[in-house]
Amino acid sequence: MRDAYADQLDGIRQDLVTMSRLVRTAVSQATESLLNGDANRAEQVISSDAEIDRKREEIEERSFELLSLQNPVAGDLRMLIAALRMVSEFERMGDLSVHVAKIARLRVPEIAVPEELEPTISRMAAIAEVMVGKVEVIIAERDADGARQLEEADEEMDKLRRSSFRDLLDSDWKHGVEAAVDIALLGRYYERIADHAVSIARRVAFLVTGDMPSPSDA
Amino acid sequence: MRDAYADQLDGIRQDLVTMSRLVRTAVSQATESLLNGDANRAEQVISSDAEIDRKREEIEERSFELLSLQNPVAGDLRMLIAALRMVSEFERMGDLSVHVAKIARLRVPEIAVPEELEPTISRMAAIAEVMVGKVEVIIAERDADGARQLEEADEEMDKLRRSSFRDLLDSDWKHGVEAAVDIALLGRYYERIADHAVSIARRVAFLVTGDMPSPSDA
Repeated sequence: MRDAYADQLDGIRQDLVTMSRLVRTAVSQATESLLNGDANRAEQVISSDAEIDRKREEIEERSFELLSLQNPVAGDLRMLIAALRMVSEFERMGDLSVHVAKIARLRVPEIAVPEELEPTISRMAAIAEVMVGKVEVIIAERDADGARQLEEADEEMDKLRRSSFRDLLDSDWKHGVEAAVDIALLGRYYERIADHAVSIARRVAFLVTGDMPSPSDA
Repeated sequence: MRDAYADQLDGIRQDLVTMSRLVRTAVSQATESLLNGDANRAEQVISSDAEIDRKREEIEERSFELLSLQNPVAGDLRMLIAALRMVSEFERMGDLSVHVAKIARLRVPEIAVPEELEPTISRMAAIAEVMVGKVEVIIAERDADGARQLEEADEEMDKLRRSSFRDLLDSDWKHGVEAAVDIALLGRYYERIADHAVSIARRVAFLVTGDMPSPSDA
């Protein structure tokens, strides 16, 4: 028979999946606001961030309670500590989505992304969103192999970011300094969202397989 | 008489101070490489980052060992969990210093920062370095008040970043897209270093006073 403690651990895992879903929505809506110059959508991302922060606090409190009262060891201890670190990363991903939405909002009624950069930025955004979606599945199914797929997606992200840099530093660039700065920062934000996704996936893989994640994962 | 467990806890606190010092050196040398266009100094920051990563792993392993074997409760449990989260932040601060050094290296023999922006960027860098220095003292002396001072320094950082943005988006800007992008990213990197310093200081204040840090601290 399952005990309350096992249920509580499962509850935390389930909460991490929920938090992942909230972050995926934030990334997706931030991109929508960015590519459509949609101020309402941007406001929604900005105001919904409080929900992500609350989820974080909730998971933190419950994890800490279990750590205090149950003296978990081995795998359970690792899981709870990983949960505490993952919620910080999810919260950052939420903040990065807010940064994207704020750039979108700042440029309304214009669109921050010049037309010729639209394919690159929208591909970066799509990769970020897919990566967050995979993290959700990886946590729910404790899928250590999924982490490797994320590393591949992350490589494509890095390539796109380099390509966007080449475009804006090209002597043909005719969209001015403001658009160039927007693109550079947007590239950075999507890249960081992807980095956090990889980092979370590595933490899950470590929990499942016991293999240490690489030192560059935080 | 002090026992081995208390000594181990103290050892971890001491290691956090050491890690903080390594990060301060990284920030300081990255700035030096940036403002002087010094490629050797930049290489030094980039190669020394491995030492920061190793320190992180070492603190992680020792904290985890104590958590596993000693079942710490209350304050000690909080301290060890805070240590695990602080090392992630210190590692990120090291990475951000590497990003600064890489921009410096990319522009050698030129200097990435145009002369008129030099005062702003060098002030941002100085604030970041002072903040990391204060974190060191805050951890060593468990100084909850120090955290408040850091918040003030962080406000000046935000103001400087906004001022650098105004400069580069000004119609008088004559340094081109590349320099504008460099300045935007450098501003972001120093701002993030400062954010992490504030976050670490808040964690220490929380350990000392028991007051919850604000939800935006990660």
